[in-house]
Amino acid sequence: MSNIVLGDKEYFKGIGQVKFEGKESDNPFAFKYYDENKVVAGKTLKEHFKFAVAYWHSFCGTGGDPFGPGTRVFPWATNSDPYQAAKDKMDAGFEFITKIGAPYFCFHDFDLIDEADTMAESQKRLDFITDYAKEKMAESGVKLLWGTANLFSNEQYMNGASTNPDFKVVARAGAQLKGALDATIKLDGENYVFWGGREGYMSLLNTNMKREIDHLGQFLTMARDYARGQGFKGNFFIEPKPAEPTKHQYDFDAATVIGFLREYNLMDDFKINLEVNHATLANHTMQHEMEVAASAGLLGSMDANRGDYQNGWDTDQFPTNLNELAEMMMIFLEHGGLQGGGINFDAKLRRNSTDLDDLFHAHIGGMDNFARSLMIADDILTKSNYSKLKADRYASFDSGDGKSFEEGKLTLEQLAKLGDNTQLTSGKQEMFENIINNYI
Amino acid sequence: MSNIVLGDKEYFKGIGQVKFEGKESDNPFAFKYYDENKVVAGKTLKEHFKFAVAYWHSFCGTGGDPFGPGTRVFPWATNSDPYQAAKDKMDAGFEFITKIGAPYFCFHDFDLIDEADTMAESQKRLDFITDYAKEKMAESGVKLLWGTANLFSNEQYMNGASTNPDFKVVARAGAQLKGALDATIKLDGENYVFWGGREGYMSLLNTNMKREIDHLGQFLTMARDYARGQGFKGNFFIEPKPAEPTKHQYDFDAATVIGFLREYNLMDDFKINLEVNHATLANHTMQHEMEVAASAGLLGSMDANRGDYQNGWDTDQFPTNLNELAEMMMIFLEHGGLQGGGINFDAKLRRNSTDLDDLFHAHIGGMDNFARSLMIADDILTKSNYSKLKADRYASFDSGDGKSFEEGKLTLEQLAKLGDNTQLTSGKQEMFENIINNYI
Amino acid sequence: MSNIVLGDKEYFKGIGQVKFEGKESDNPFAFKYYDENKVVAGKTLKEHFKFAVAYWHSFCGTGGDPFGPGTRVFPWATNSDPYQAAKDKMDAGFEFITKIGAPYFCFHDFDLIDEADTMAESQKRLDFITDYAKEKMAESGVKLLWGTANLFSNEQYMNGASTNPDFKVVARAGAQLKGALDATIKLDGENYVFWGGREGYMSLLNTNMKREIDHLGQFLTMARDYARGQGFKGNFFIEPKPAEPTKHQYDFDAATVIGFLREYNLMDDFKINLEVNHATLANHTMQHEMEVAASAGLLGSMDANRGDYQNGWDTDQFPTNLNELAEMMMIFLEHGGLQGGGINFDAKLRRNSTDLDDLFHAHIGGMDNFARSLMIADDILTKSNYSKLKADRYASFDSGDGKSFEEGKLTLEQLAKLGDNTQLTSGKQEMFENIINNYI
Amino acid sequence: MSNIVLGDKEYFKGIGQVKFEGKESDNPFAFKYYDENKVVAGKTLKEHFKFAVAYWHSFCGTGGDPFGPGTRVFPWATNSDPYQAAKDKMDAGFEFITKIGAPYFCFHDFDLIDEADTMAESQKRLDFITDYAKEKMAESGVKLLWGTANLFSNEQYMNGASTNPDFKVVARAGAQLKGALDATIKLDGENYVFWGGREGYMSLLNTNMKREIDHLGQFLTMARDYARGQGFKGNFFIEPKPAEPTKHQYDFDAATVIGFLREYNLMDDFKINLEVNHATLANHTMQHEMEVAASAGLLGSMDANRGDYQNGWDTDQFPTNLNELAEMMMIFLEHGGLQGGGINFDAKLRRNSTDLDDLFHAHIGGMDNFARSLMIADDILTKSNYSKLKADRYASFDSGDGKSFEEGKLTLEQLAKLGDNTQLTSGKQEMFENIINNYI
Repeated sequence: MSNIVLGDKEYFKGIGQVKFEGKESDNPFAFKYYDENKVVAGKTLKEHFKFAVAYWHSFCGTGGDPFGPGTRVFPWATNSDPYQAAKDKMDAGFEFITKIGAPYFCFHDFDLIDEADTMAESQKRLDFITDYAKEKMAESGVKLLWGTANLFSNEQYMNGASTNPDFKVVARAGAQLKGALDATIKLDGENYVFWGGREGYMSLLNTNMKREIDHLGQFLTMARDYARGQGFKGNFFIEPKPAEPTKHQYDFDAATVIGFLREYNLMDDFKINLEVNHATLANHTMQHEMEVAASAGLLGSMDANRGDYQNGWDTDQFPTNLNELAEMMMIFLEHGGLQGGGINFDAKLRRNSTDLDDLFHAHIGGMDNFARSLMIADDILTKSNYSKLKADRYASFDSGDGKSFEEGKLTLEQLAKLGDNTQLTSGKQEMFENIINNYI
Repeated sequence: MSNIVLGDKEYFKGIGQVKFEGKESDNPFAFKYYDENKVVAGKTLKEHFKFAVAYWHSFCGTGGDPFGPGTRVFPWATNSDPYQAAKDKMDAGFEFITKIGAPYFCFHDFDLIDEADTMAESQKRLDFITDYAKEKMAESGVKLLWGTANLFSNEQYMNGASTNPDFKVVARAGAQLKGALDATIKLDGENYVFWGGREGYMSLLNTNMKREIDHLGQFLTMARDYARGQGFKGNFFIEPKPAEPTKHQYDFDAATVIGFLREYNLMDDFKINLEVNHATLANHTMQHEMEVAASAGLLGSMDANRGDYQNGWDTDQFPTNLNELAEMMMIFLEHGGLQGGGINFDAKLRRNSTDLDDLFHAHIGGMDNFARSLMIADDILTKSNYSKLKADRYASFDSGDGKSFEEGKLTLEQLAKLGDNTQLTSGKQEMFENIINNYI
Repeated sequence: MSNIVLGDKEYFKGIGQVKFEGKESDNPFAFKYYDENKVVAGKTLKEHFKFAVAYWHSFCGTGGDPFGPGTRVFPWATNSDPYQAAKDKMDAGFEFITKIGAPYFCFHDFDLIDEADTMAESQKRLDFITDYAKEKMAESGVKLLWGTANLFSNEQYMNGASTNPDFKVVARAGAQLKGALDATIKLDGENYVFWGGREGYMSLLNTNMKREIDHLGQFLTMARDYARGQGFKGNFFIEPKPAEPTKHQYDFDAATVIGFLREYNLMDDFKINLEVNHATLANHTMQHEMEVAASAGLLGSMDANRGDYQNGWDTDQFPTNLNELAEMMMIFLEHGGLQGGGINFDAKLRRNSTDLDDLFHAHIGGMDNFARSLMIADDILTKSNYSKLKADRYASFDSGDGKSFEEGKLTLEQLAKLGDNTQLTSGKQEMFENIINNYI
Repeated sequence: MSNIVLGDKEYFKGIGQVKFEGKESDNPFAFKYYDENKVVAGKTLKEHFKFAVAYWHSFCGTGGDPFGPGTRVFPWATNSDPYQAAKDKMDAGFEFITKIGAPYFCFHDFDLIDEADTMAESQKRLDFITDYAKEKMAESGVKLLWGTANLFSNEQYMNGASTNPDFKVVARAGAQLKGALDATIKLDGENYVFWGGREGYMSLLNTNMKREIDHLGQFLTMARDYARGQGFKGNFFIEPKPAEPTKHQYDFDAATVIGFLREYNLMDDFKINLEVNHATLANHTMQHEMEVAASAGLLGSMDANRGDYQNGWDTDQFPTNLNELAEMMMIFLEHGGLQGGGINFDAKLRRNSTDLDDLFHAHIGGMDNFARSLMIADDILTKSNYSKLKADRYASFDSGDGKSFEEGKLTLEQLAKLGDNTQLTSGKQEMFENIINNYI
């Protein structure tokens, strides 16, 4: 657990380091399940999860929505000088990160400091604040899970960034991308993420989809080549989302992204950063998306949150559902965890959660729920007959004709000769479901 | 237009051949827009569409739903002998097909004749009825757009057909597949379709997704090799659908299928058969799915129908929405139509549409709406400035640095040097939308 | 716990009475949480829940779906004589009900025995089987939670039952309704349910909605008057559902039903039977629907199941989600439970769950999950500060001007004079959510 | 048609008054269908529709969304003095309204002028700008269709306005409501609207729903009493929406609102203002919502726009779909139009539509599509056999036993005696659908 790292003042007064006290504790500012040193399935919880705090939601987002402005008043957002304001925000950020005990953080370039009117000034600001970040990281031991460029907020990107119909905007996006890659490398970021918020379309009527997707492939290829040339050894991640703010986003879901990576020869460098709420907006469970990505060896990282099954937009709530988390963690363990990434809390407080301590409640709940779910999943996989029951269903492919089929050694005529009516075998879904709940 | 072909008796009495009478006609049994010989964009409407009647919905489906049995009483479904009943149904089918003037039909193997208790007897029945179909096709000139095996209804496939965890069921599916391929080849079918109704899962808890999808790839490869060995020159189509009856179907949408075909090296032989209702169930417009498939050169065929935007299952209604159809036909024309396939009415009467003439109303509406929409689309593409406006948006990539970018000749550093803030360019979506309605 | 009641033969061989063994038990045929005699919040679990087995899903439904026929082979469904077949089914039914230890069952009229071709013969059959049911109930002590008429399966109702545009069909529905009411009264049914599966429309184009809903109001009024005249003292329940099989069902959700009951003066006799899957299809949580119904004093009964958030139709799965169930049970306890009804498992096995023991796994899981969730909810309400925190939010209305406002004693001008900017008060949603998980 | 009314400068230069030129015109700045003086079904189009421009979207909304700030640069939004800025905006507004030829506008209180930090200053501003509005309205002849208070944007309302758990906020909302009512009355507003954007909940866990809804009823009652006391003769409208920004909004849909009005005795003064996108978010067609409201005599007014069937949030696009609009206009005509209200374009440009002329394209398309659809609907109702076919379906209730049933003169026993199996009557949905398209 890192020491608390403060700047010139303390922002979250009255709250010290959040500690593990166990499930019987009634201290709302203690972990009930997340004991970072506890070993489960051969690794500590800290190593399994590599929890990261999302800079944007936690230290920048004041709660605005399409029907009203922000509600949260941040004591670190009072200075009119953008440089000092950015330092204050970073002091508050590292205070929170070290108090909650997360070993990582994640950022978009202009989360760290406000973007300026000119690109030159923006780059200067970025250089300044990444210098300061380097100091804070060294002092605290907190690391950068991943960096990314915000290529969706600026009005320049209203028609897309790398997929903009206007090459001038693509070039602007390229310049910003280079700055974000440089910043990530400078801070020893372990990974770099692409979320293409505006890489899609509002209307097919005015869109040349093929040409836009080709440009996206070109852009990512250039990014990869540049970063590798700069010595970056980390992973590149693409984060799928089906829509919002666009009507359709090209990185719709894991399967779409995998198809894209394969087509544009990016499979060796890129993996997938899945987000729960994006999965459900695409009409998939998160478990499904994890299985799809992991089956391709591309389960890179995860953005932890949840959506609302009755609403159709990205609500980015903190995760609470134990059944869903336990099933997610089963897949997590079955596939040996994440490929290079971690668990980033891309989750935000509700607009009407306006107390400073609400950020603690939210993260404590999220981290506890993950820890608890991992332990449940480990129990199911190691103490119950779950894995055996599942493997047994496929036993007919482990030898004989079934194995020959799987290995591609049968022709259709040979297969057809083996075919006849057979006994039905129950899928026993309800029994499988009972096993899960017996371990929650 | 083919002649009416009757069997021993006439089933749709009082209705003769449906003819084109023009938009001023108030005859409900006449086409208002579909003049099969009318030339639009260089081809007759008959050639453009290759309209097909779906054997299953039109001649087999009596209207059952999960809350009640069928409602339609078919006068051709009275004989207890399966052979004679199949002949009677085929007589009724060809009577309807020739009266409505569709040049094609489509079938699943056991649409044509009822499946028997043993596979040997089922195959015998299939041989019998395909002999008879050959006669009817010769007499009428009606052709087979595509055949397919029903690998989802039989309870043997309750856990999947080619993706069943039990190899014995996979082999049974292989035997049935072979029969359906043989039948399609025998009847000079122009294409062969795979719709994997049960190729997916009900619960991830008991499913090895990777292994199942590998089996699917293996199965399709064997089918391709067998049929090509038998001299089949047509296309293989995969029909995507996101779910139903399964919770998740592996052929979720066009992008997923394309990724699958690429991974399993099936791109040269397989294309996509899109269905409107499947597109909307996957949270896509049909226009989107068409553009995705066409961009990959895989827009093979289409199942015409529509879903209900307020309901979450496959309603398979006849197409009526002119705005949507016109936008679909724009993409159809922009990409040079379909790759080998046609427009199959995979649409069914509502359960409470129980008159024999309802089948005529439904198809007349469907064919007219397609014809009208194609003419609207052609007008937009040839008479308005739509195409120019769309192309102009991308002009910056046609020369200079934009072209170099598109061709992969720029590094990120070179691109970044060109990047700066620029003027915003309106996407003008509302103006594009007005153009469409000005031509409807 | 009732004794096992068998008929001439035992159908679920090898499975005895399911007993409570506690959470440490690894016996899949034992309850881990449902101890029917355990007292929680002043009542036994048996009294709280009044669990009922649904005759249709459990003993009639063989697993057919729109893409294939049933898969389950019922050993009690072998006799070609409808009378004997109905007796065999009832023997199997009571064997299961008594083995699982449910104190109640529920039925539609023609679940009990197959409907015949004439109404007279159908009524005769119903008289026969209800005689037999009376015997079985006496022998076992199992009671009837509610009866209902199936006014949706028969093709006669394809355009609606009481809302059919054809008066003859309305009259037929009336005759069937009378028979079902009589049967329910004969068997001392505690309640009577209306689920209007076809009371809605497929298309507004051919529908006079106002007239149809008036007919529905008339029909329910007549039913009430008749049954009360026969001495029926129980509740009438309406079960809301937004759609399916219709495009729109008039009893869309709880709020719609309450508005309808108010308009047609049926509030004194009718309450609401909520179903979880129907709630989620209407884009509500079940918790929401329970709160709406309970706020009007109309939370009558519940159909326990769950839907699938990624699918858009009624999947009727057995309940498994502990977070959702715990929140439901909080509302259940806060409002003093159900008004006359109980928990009916309107849930069905997956189509590929074909073993006879699957029905046990499903019900054991469902009953355990309810029992466990009720205990969690009771803990939250009695051991945590949850109730106090919630009440405190509204304290400003408990006295002073706030109270005057609530009592309607202020004019807008008076209210306006009190109005000015004030301090924001956090809603603390994340903290509330943590409380729930601390007790699961 | 009103004359163009400018302020000190012209904002939409180069665009004059938009005129009707007929469907053959290729002038993008002319109406193709909306001839305001054309008489259809006994009224001019101007009288039928009472088109209104929405002040907020058209003159205030710069295009921000949850993922980026606004993109539109308004030439009228340059003055730092809020009073002058408000006058400039109003000059631009009336220039647009008179150029487009809309006879009405609609506003929220703080659309007209920016809200200030104190309520007293805000009220002063409102008094100022309504004085100016009075002048502009007199000069132009443009009228106020309805006014409303924005009780959702200000952070004070983050937990609700009239349904806030804190009475102080309810009082603040009361003060603002009074100001908006006064402003509406001052400007001879024909109606007053309540849209309860925050009147719902984010989480049921911390919500006392019953108490909140009671407060809502109280608040509306006080508003009604106050305004009537001030001599206001117009209608009060409630605008339903199911969710967004809240998880659940109490005014979910038309049926819910009607039930609420009935319960709180507000039926005599309140009607419903329906919005298309809100209807579809509630899983209803707009046609459905219109029919529900009209059946209760409460179809007061309409907010014209459309959603996106593949996205789950309020997109507020301009209406384009002719099939849907034609069906809406059929219901409109069948029920004699709107009760006091009109057609307000509560629609916004896409974020990437940044040209000043885009606002013209959007409104021209919208007004033309309504005009065209009304004429189509009138043709269907007067020239086709549609109405007769629909009425004939219900003929059995026009006399004899059916009439007795409808009038409540039959007991269930009498009805049951009339009941027997009867002939099925086709609903003929596909034929009805063809009729519609034959007139588009």
